[in-house]
Amino acid sequence: MCQLLGMNCRLPATIDFSLEGFQARGGLTDEHKDGWGIAFFEEHGCRIFLDHQPAAHSPLLTAIRAQQIKSRNVIAHIRKATYGEVTLRNCHPFKRELWGQSWIFSHNGDLHNFHPVLTGRFTPEGETDSERAFCFIMERMAAAFPKATRDNPPALDDLYSLWQTLADEIAAFGVFNVMLSNGDILFTHCSTNLAYVERSYPFTQVTLIDSDVSLDLNAHNSREDRMVVIATKPLTRNEHWIICEAGESLVFKDGLPLLGSHLHAKKLLAA
Amino acid sequence: MCQLLGMNCRLPATIDFSLEGFQARGGLTDEHKDGWGIAFFEEHGCRIFLDHQPAAHSPLLTAIRAQQIKSRNVIAHIRKATYGEVTLRNCHPFKRELWGQSWIFSHNGDLHNFHPVLTGRFTPEGETDSERAFCFIMERMAAAFPKATRDNPPALDDLYSLWQTLADEIAAFGVFNVMLSNGDILFTHCSTNLAYVERSYPFTQVTLIDSDVSLDLNAHNSREDRMVVIATKPLTRNEHWIICEAGESLVFKDGLPLLGSHLHAKKLLAA
Repeated sequence: MCQLLGMNCRLPATIDFSLEGFQARGGLTDEHKDGWGIAFFEEHGCRIFLDHQPAAHSPLLTAIRAQQIKSRNVIAHIRKATYGEVTLRNCHPFKRELWGQSWIFSHNGDLHNFHPVLTGRFTPEGETDSERAFCFIMERMAAAFPKATRDNPPALDDLYSLWQTLADEIAAFGVFNVMLSNGDILFTHCSTNLAYVERSYPFTQVTLIDSDVSLDLNAHNSREDRMVVIATKPLTRNEHWIICEAGESLVFKDGLPLLGSHLHAKKLLAA
Repeated sequence: MCQLLGMNCRLPATIDFSLEGFQARGGLTDEHKDGWGIAFFEEHGCRIFLDHQPAAHSPLLTAIRAQQIKSRNVIAHIRKATYGEVTLRNCHPFKRELWGQSWIFSHNGDLHNFHPVLTGRFTPEGETDSERAFCFIMERMAAAFPKATRDNPPALDDLYSLWQTLADEIAAFGVFNVMLSNGDILFTHCSTNLAYVERSYPFTQVTLIDSDVSLDLNAHNSREDRMVVIATKPLTRNEHWIICEAGESLVFKDGLPLLGSHLHAKKLLAA
């Protein structure tokens, strides 16, 4: 099993504070010591950093954190190998290009006997069930919107609807807690463990669960900032984390949850 | 314009010494200060590190060098922007997946009015002529060998023949000094500037041109090691660098040049 960390923001922000707690889980406060990866969508580009060494003791991760990279969408992953070699090609997040955009994918859980027929347009490089699921999703998205381009993307409602269908279809094969982003939107699906917290002005002081460190978010954000942090398990002790429901698919944009089945139900109840 | 650095080895080796001279050209001994990138093929995986800051002053590049990553194929690039924003999505090397393998591409030179019709399977994320050329190559390779897989790749002769055709076709649009690798083989094409040096047992002491540093290659390599280092311009002063000819396409494998038109001509002369 693995742990996931994601962030979706209105304006570029650093994820460093959350990453500190997350890094500790990579071999220090938790057992996820078989590699880590983090993808940053920065202005007009995407970078992935991968390592098969434990996150907690990685000089590379420390160097990256020191850069204080600002990003609107981040997906990070620490791994505890259940099967499959501890090797780079099995490290999440995975990346593929579709419609002239980078798509980034990360998965927590196991799928059993998930061997979809793939056309060859997107082919796994490694052996993980996760990368197979990602290639399957990319193929189905490409097939559903054959004329889409970066400048003429599918309507968000249509894409979200397809995401729900695909996530449900794959989740039938096992545990499928996932994040998928193209740098603009961030999709999630929860089978068992996923939680998120919304942050906006006025920001508060928050304290990490995994190390005794506090941060005054007010000092690091402006009135215009707004963000959602998503993780396998809550990272801070004094914030209102929302625990995702089993089977719930969400989409985050501009630092807000949108269109989720859960939210949709809430809206219907409120109406 | 930009500078390229590549390495193709029989056994995994570090490129750190060559990288030291190359890093100096990224804003210290030369003017290539608009970002850098390096791709390492490691056992069963590929990592790219990208930065839009000058290589010479990059803490990230220093941290990467400290890791002493061992690799059989490396492609690195430092950029002096001639047109196109200094932004991450325009940083080389570029990466795409084909046949379940990572393919890495880097280009030095400018292409004029190169706007091939692309089917959409491989679409540029940035604005560079380089990434357009890469997508064009990937599409043509995919189309030429539709049944190829990682376990059943095209014959090297056939792939090299296609590489020559494609490189000639693209080079007609301008200057096309390039490197392309799938982690096993490394293709090059030279329009104006490209040179390589072969290293094998017994290794010698070599001295960098760009900084007054020497290295005894014997201390760092064994009898079984064999490698080729390829660069825009020779990196060391006391080795036999072979300057590529204009229009020459080469392929390197296991630390040796193979099948090159130049070598082929030499072989014919010798026969």
